[in-house]
Amino acid sequence: MSEKLTKTALTPSTHTTPPAKFSHGVRKGNILQVAGQVGFGPAVEGQAPKPVGPGLREQTLQTLANVQAILEEGGASWEDVMMLRVFLTDTGHFAEFNEIYNEFFADLVEAPSARTTVYVGLPAGLLVEIDALAVLG
Amino acid sequence: MSEKLTKTALTPSTHTTPPAKFSHGVRKGNILQVAGQVGFGPAVEGQAPKPVGPGLREQTLQTLANVQAILEEGGASWEDVMMLRVFLTDTGHFAEFNEIYNEFFADLVEAPSARTTVYVGLPAGLLVEIDALAVLG
Amino acid sequence: MSEKLTKTALTPSTHTTPPAKFSHGVRKGNILQVAGQVGFGPAVEGQAPKPVGPGLREQTLQTLANVQAILEEGGASWEDVMMLRVFLTDTGHFAEFNEIYNEFFADLVEAPSARTTVYVGLPAGLLVEIDALAVLG
Repeated sequence: MSEKLTKTALTPSTHTTPPAKFSHGVRKGNILQVAGQVGFGPAVEGQAPKPVGPGLREQTLQTLANVQAILEEGGASWEDVMMLRVFLTDTGHFAEFNEIYNEFFADLVEAPSARTTVYVGLPAGLLVEIDALAVLG
Repeated sequence: MSEKLTKTALTPSTHTTPPAKFSHGVRKGNILQVAGQVGFGPAVEGQAPKPVGPGLREQTLQTLANVQAILEEGGASWEDVMMLRVFLTDTGHFAEFNEIYNEFFADLVEAPSARTTVYVGLPAGLLVEIDALAVLG
Repeated sequence: MSEKLTKTALTPSTHTTPPAKFSHGVRKGNILQVAGQVGFGPAVEGQAPKPVGPGLREQTLQTLANVQAILEEGGASWEDVMMLRVFLTDTGHFAEFNEIYNEFFADLVEAPSARTTVYVGLPAGLLVEIDALAVLG
């Protein structure tokens, strides 16, 4: 009875090409999944992606901006996000990360997203990675 | 054609305030996402949250109770859970964790949830963190 | 108004019994969740599961085959996958993993899945674990 759903890749123009055959984000029906984003600055033709800075603040804000660009590409906003998975590399970053996070989300209107924060290994130079699940509608 | 879905924060009264602007759980439509829960005991006014005990058993049972409280706040039960993400800190805990897990879920009627278990870093004193995705209806 | 959804366990005959009370995969409505899969070969009666080989290539291909068997058991294919979570143990494996991944997914027709890759601890002998979220329809 239901019509066929289409899966759409979400590829903001600011994003560097993924390093493998995956999408920065996909949307199908009212489900939108954002791939793990890191603090890479806007894509520069012919250059390998690199983090915007060595510090947690710059990387976190850039990572969140990268997630947001994908949400917007798919017609969603932070208000639609159900879950943010946060991967940090150092438990010592938790308090500072939360400060930055709270500033960033100060103006949320709807219920804030759920979140899980764990400490993992990331490629050299990266301090934070974030992915997101959104439900639109 | 479909009506606007509302995202609702799920905040059991037993839960301590999240350390940042995120929700312990959110529900939108028939999707319910529980944030990463740990073995913190019930909130005590004016006290920082702390784990119920140093051992894996106490922490795991409290963590599962904390997940369950959020599911119930959103009108769901373990039967609705599709995925549990389990974060342990030590591969040596796997067998004991599974024993506790099996006891806890002995009475499940429907298909048990899927699960992924990986070993990560957690804040000092925490041995286990669990989050959950449920589909209601 | 909507009919009751049933949650179905997805248990390919090739799979070893899960080490605890969880399902290799579950489907409810149009949501399908695959549990964390590793490079275990097909189940052999009376034998503990073991990885197909010590190398990243064999384990990755077997892991992907194991994910695929669960997708197919639930009536889905790689085209329906929204998110793959990849857990590696060594950042030094990233480039080789991506090569294998790209070969495996060379023939995808629809938008490739989103993906998050992080580096965690896994039980001894395992180099990769992957789980998947699919939306059918």
